[in-house]
Amino acid sequence: MSDLNSYYAVIMAGGGGTRLWPLSRQDRPKQSLPLLGDRTMFQMAVQRLAPLFPPERILVVTNARYAEDLRQQTPELPADNFVLEPAPHGTAPAIALAAQALQQRAPAAVMACLTADHHIGQEARFRDLLAAAAALAEEDFLVTLGIAPAFASTGFGYIQRGAPLGRYGGFDAFRAVRFKEKPALPEAQAMLTGGLHSWNSGMFVWRVARILAEVERQLPALHAVLARAAAQPATLAEVWAGVPNTTLDYGIMEGAAEVAVIPADGLDWDDIGSWEALLDVLPPDADGNLVIGAEYLGLQSGGVLVHSSHAPGRRLIATIGLKNMVIVDTEDVLLVCPRDRSQEVRALVEQLKLRAGGKLYL
Amino acid sequence: MSDLNSYYAVIMAGGGGTRLWPLSRQDRPKQSLPLLGDRTMFQMAVQRLAPLFPPERILVVTNARYAEDLRQQTPELPADNFVLEPAPHGTAPAIALAAQALQQRAPAAVMACLTADHHIGQEARFRDLLAAAAALAEEDFLVTLGIAPAFASTGFGYIQRGAPLGRYGGFDAFRAVRFKEKPALPEAQAMLTGGLHSWNSGMFVWRVARILAEVERQLPALHAVLARAAAQPATLAEVWAGVPNTTLDYGIMEGAAEVAVIPADGLDWDDIGSWEALLDVLPPDADGNLVIGAEYLGLQSGGVLVHSSHAPGRRLIATIGLKNMVIVDTEDVLLVCPRDRSQEVRALVEQLKLRAGGKLYL
Repeated sequence: MSDLNSYYAVIMAGGGGTRLWPLSRQDRPKQSLPLLGDRTMFQMAVQRLAPLFPPERILVVTNARYAEDLRQQTPELPADNFVLEPAPHGTAPAIALAAQALQQRAPAAVMACLTADHHIGQEARFRDLLAAAAALAEEDFLVTLGIAPAFASTGFGYIQRGAPLGRYGGFDAFRAVRFKEKPALPEAQAMLTGGLHSWNSGMFVWRVARILAEVERQLPALHAVLARAAAQPATLAEVWAGVPNTTLDYGIMEGAAEVAVIPADGLDWDDIGSWEALLDVLPPDADGNLVIGAEYLGLQSGGVLVHSSHAPGRRLIATIGLKNMVIVDTEDVLLVCPRDRSQEVRALVEQLKLRAGGKLYL
Repeated sequence: MSDLNSYYAVIMAGGGGTRLWPLSRQDRPKQSLPLLGDRTMFQMAVQRLAPLFPPERILVVTNARYAEDLRQQTPELPADNFVLEPAPHGTAPAIALAAQALQQRAPAAVMACLTADHHIGQEARFRDLLAAAAALAEEDFLVTLGIAPAFASTGFGYIQRGAPLGRYGGFDAFRAVRFKEKPALPEAQAMLTGGLHSWNSGMFVWRVARILAEVERQLPALHAVLARAAAQPATLAEVWAGVPNTTLDYGIMEGAAEVAVIPADGLDWDDIGSWEALLDVLPPDADGNLVIGAEYLGLQSGGVLVHSSHAPGRRLIATIGLKNMVIVDTEDVLLVCPRDRSQEVRALVEQLKLRAGGKLYL
């Protein structure tokens, strides 16, 4: 596969996600939001791949609920490149389903499993990284793409590197010796200063045959469902209900051998896991405010994120003496919270689920 | 006038006011807002007078721009009880115009000059105060209604009392020996602790003949205009342009003799001079939040004032960890500011006047 003609990208676009509520909703997940400008996160995820992958080799795995919207966002992709889960059960079943679809098209394929809703500022470097990872995957490694940790995050998973595997396309590769999900702060700080850990980007590269073998070995129930669906495609929706929920990290990576990590720095990567993260990704104005979609007048205000998707051009948002706040203004919901508490939007969403009439706003 | 049959109330309802922007606008002044519930401030001002003044003896002085709206709010008032200034020039010209109109109806009348946009919680006591003031006005005093100062306000004017004038209808009356407009904080503190000062409520009671004599003596230009307009009513709009701007306090009270003050406590009075003041007037919920017009979900939030006049019943306002903030949500403007800076709304309004397109929101 040295000419990359059997290299496929699979974009995982089935996530729901409530962390950017109230802009993201059950029927309008983060990947479908134009968070950073005119294009949706999903459109950006597809378009950054174009120099490396022709449209025929870009697959999207999502669930039926989002498929039509995503197809409309990317008319350049063939309609049957959308692999539809009957229901979401986590990233492992989603990728297994996509791997099975690829196996039928190109049994020797290498697949890059990519996210649909992350920011990647350095797109050319990202493609170089994907090309390097493909070469390593050809040697039958399960390749993880690591991110140089920027701080002692307790929200990301970490990958510890072991013995060096050599240099691939300008990147150093290592054996991955341990996965650590969302650590407590002391451990996160130790990993940050130790220098042996990368953040787990949630992006992976491997041969289709290799990942399907891992599914068969580690997730036999999922493998059985895929085998039944392959024999009788019409039964997929029915048998899919029996698939256990699991992620690639827990279900596959933690129990796998021959795992590699390519630690990448300089990608300008961000998962935009909260409203606050937008302030890290987009440049603020001279007052340190970031204003998207609204006319804004701030008196002695700084570090304010204003996002309005409501009556564009006919709505003014005004603040006095506001510091480090997030204001998200949608047609039916207004959210105001301190910037460093924007992660707690999840708790609001949980309360809304329990509140009379609250589901209207989910 | 001991039976009060020549006692008239004149409600000054011509103020523009930007302190409650963005709810109050040039065409929707504070007196026309249902700030405290279902009724507008003006409706409340009229209705609290009903047990003392029949509708025929309640006049309203306002400018042409607001007249139709105010008439619709109070169909119980005779249409020709609305005295219209061609343009606003402050409270002195407005009251002089109303006094002239009253002189033609009832030359012996006593007039109570009342505000249209203040909160008065103890309405029966307020009417008792008005009755007491009328008796003192019959003795030819210019009577001011004082408010017991609740704190060292630098935003109100103060009235210093001198020799006692006796007891009127349960209230002690005094000569007023000094008016002090909006003092600096040290002086405000000294006046508060000294116990000789009342806040100036902006409400006055006097004989029509007495106030017109004061206008003639102290504001001869205004008196001349009134005289010309009385001779040729059709010329009022034209000659009114020559009236100098002045208030009752500066133009009349500071230079008048035989001024009295009745210090009133227990009125539960508030001029609602800012958004923050609503929190003093209306009872908050168990978390200390005051929510008007919105569905609200606050996570660890307290002391928050939420006022929404936008899409009632179909809009949720959610906050996380917000303390002592004001959120005012209107159809085209959203304001967010700390509670103790809500007075600075005026500065926002000034900036909007200068901003391209800003007048849309005034």
